[in-house]
Amino acid sequence: MSSIDIEISEVGPRDGLQSIDPIMPTEAKKRWITALAAAGIPEIEVGSFVPAKVLPQLADTAELVVHARQIEGLSVAVLVPNLRGAMNALAVLPHKITVPLSVSETHSLKNLKRTHAQVLEELRAIRAAIDELPTTERPKLEGSLSTAFGCTLEGEVPLDKVLEMAEKLAAAGCDEVGLSDTTGFASPVQVREYTRQIHQLLGREMLSGIHLHNTRGQGLANVMAALDAGLTTVDASMGGIGGCPFAPGASGNIVTEDLVFLLESMGLKTGVNFERLMAARKVLAQALPQVELYGFTPEAGLPKGFRPATAQSGG
Amino acid sequence: MSSIDIEISEVGPRDGLQSIDPIMPTEAKKRWITALAAAGIPEIEVGSFVPAKVLPQLADTAELVVHARQIEGLSVAVLVPNLRGAMNALAVLPHKITVPLSVSETHSLKNLKRTHAQVLEELRAIRAAIDELPTTERPKLEGSLSTAFGCTLEGEVPLDKVLEMAEKLAAAGCDEVGLSDTTGFASPVQVREYTRQIHQLLGREMLSGIHLHNTRGQGLANVMAALDAGLTTVDASMGGIGGCPFAPGASGNIVTEDLVFLLESMGLKTGVNFERLMAARKVLAQALPQVELYGFTPEAGLPKGFRPATAQSGG
Repeated sequence: MSSIDIEISEVGPRDGLQSIDPIMPTEAKKRWITALAAAGIPEIEVGSFVPAKVLPQLADTAELVVHARQIEGLSVAVLVPNLRGAMNALAVLPHKITVPLSVSETHSLKNLKRTHAQVLEELRAIRAAIDELPTTERPKLEGSLSTAFGCTLEGEVPLDKVLEMAEKLAAAGCDEVGLSDTTGFASPVQVREYTRQIHQLLGREMLSGIHLHNTRGQGLANVMAALDAGLTTVDASMGGIGGCPFAPGASGNIVTEDLVFLLESMGLKTGVNFERLMAARKVLAQALPQVELYGFTPEAGLPKGFRPATAQSGG
Repeated sequence: MSSIDIEISEVGPRDGLQSIDPIMPTEAKKRWITALAAAGIPEIEVGSFVPAKVLPQLADTAELVVHARQIEGLSVAVLVPNLRGAMNALAVLPHKITVPLSVSETHSLKNLKRTHAQVLEELRAIRAAIDELPTTERPKLEGSLSTAFGCTLEGEVPLDKVLEMAEKLAAAGCDEVGLSDTTGFASPVQVREYTRQIHQLLGREMLSGIHLHNTRGQGLANVMAALDAGLTTVDASMGGIGGCPFAPGASGNIVTEDLVFLLESMGLKTGVNFERLMAARKVLAQALPQVELYGFTPEAGLPKGFRPATAQSGG
């Protein structure tokens, strides 16, 4: 297996599918996840452990974790809003559990129906539950700082508040924190500065990933800033599907296909094969013909004579 | 007038309108140009001096130069493919004349129907014609290195060839050279490296601007690289209309509206007022209702509590 410079974490099966009305059949999701992994995507967030009545689109998350865990080399991630969800997740042992905490408490109350103190309380309980597992089975616990760059309800979110919450997530037992531009407000200057400050505060190993939106077309510009700041994992969604359905006016993840092209064109290995990625896109398109898939590179194709970094390393 | 950190050169009236079939009425073009200038756009490429039978959409370029020159503070630019076009341009005195030279000679033959030697010969003649004008009336002469980052016909275009052509443009009497990603092949690594090398070769004052496409969604990521490398002028097109109609498979300029948001969100003053820019977009949309306008920021609106850099300087 070739080495990877930048890890793309595909969030389409979670962030994408939770944002659209039609429910993708479980067997189609499995085919899609298999195709994504076959294209070389190293990590997939396969779903979220929320009550089926809240998000019926993701009711089969446990079955998808079991399926995805059988794929050699794939890191299987899930989102979990609370302890109850975490217990359901731990029953099927994903490799990574992400718990969101909205830095904007207004958004936290609206989205998770919890204050910061309540989220941190749940996190400590989740940490304890994880620690009861044998060492080799413990998933990595990530606390995700959502609305870190601004909130559709509160507007500006102060950097100090982001740092305070990052510190509290670490103190509550998170193995890692993540930055999330839930609302599509982030500027490259913010991405660089916030990353630098969290690295100073908690150490570089505590923040490696970022979740960026393309709400105002600035998604890949922010990726440039993230690379500058030394981040090595970037979330993206095939066809750009998804966003945050609870933040009014916010929509649009970074398109996986365009991110792969950008990184590979810069000589950064993603481990992803573009043709096989297009095959995975076809699986998605066939399963959800009524959903619009975005992306420039799928339309334009690769440039004539294009040599992706991954291919050059023999990956 | 507030100072400007990054100058947006609006190419929609030329690059945009030449790429679409419907012909925008001259009076509507004038209203659009006036509205763009009123929004604070500092430079507009109003048209191209090509035969009307080749591009009937731009047949009124001379009249538009005369109109735009009456707008206080606006830099009026035009494209010119040859000496004949330059003579027509000089009759109405734009502030800037850009002559494209395709670094890919295959593309040059197909696009301009000229070899490199023939384009350089025309350039020397244009230089001589400009120098016959009184000093205060002479437009700036820019040689634009098109297909600098790759060609849909030749594939890879070597950096050495780009540097050789940049040097020849300077020797032929250009006041400035420009880099152009005609085909949407450019990566941020290329943008940084090519800019650095041309700056070393010819001096920083000889290269300040870049024309980037968004063909594979990488437009604003490349803008980040251009800023890093110290470029201060970026071409963009309102609604992202246009591209290069002669390069098969290439389409899509950077969207002016999204570029303004990106730069202003980074604290870089463009001098552009977003609301007035939206008013200019409305003028365009009303004049060409059949043409699809792109752009994320116009759809999403500005973030809640957003403070543009330009407004903060009182501009």
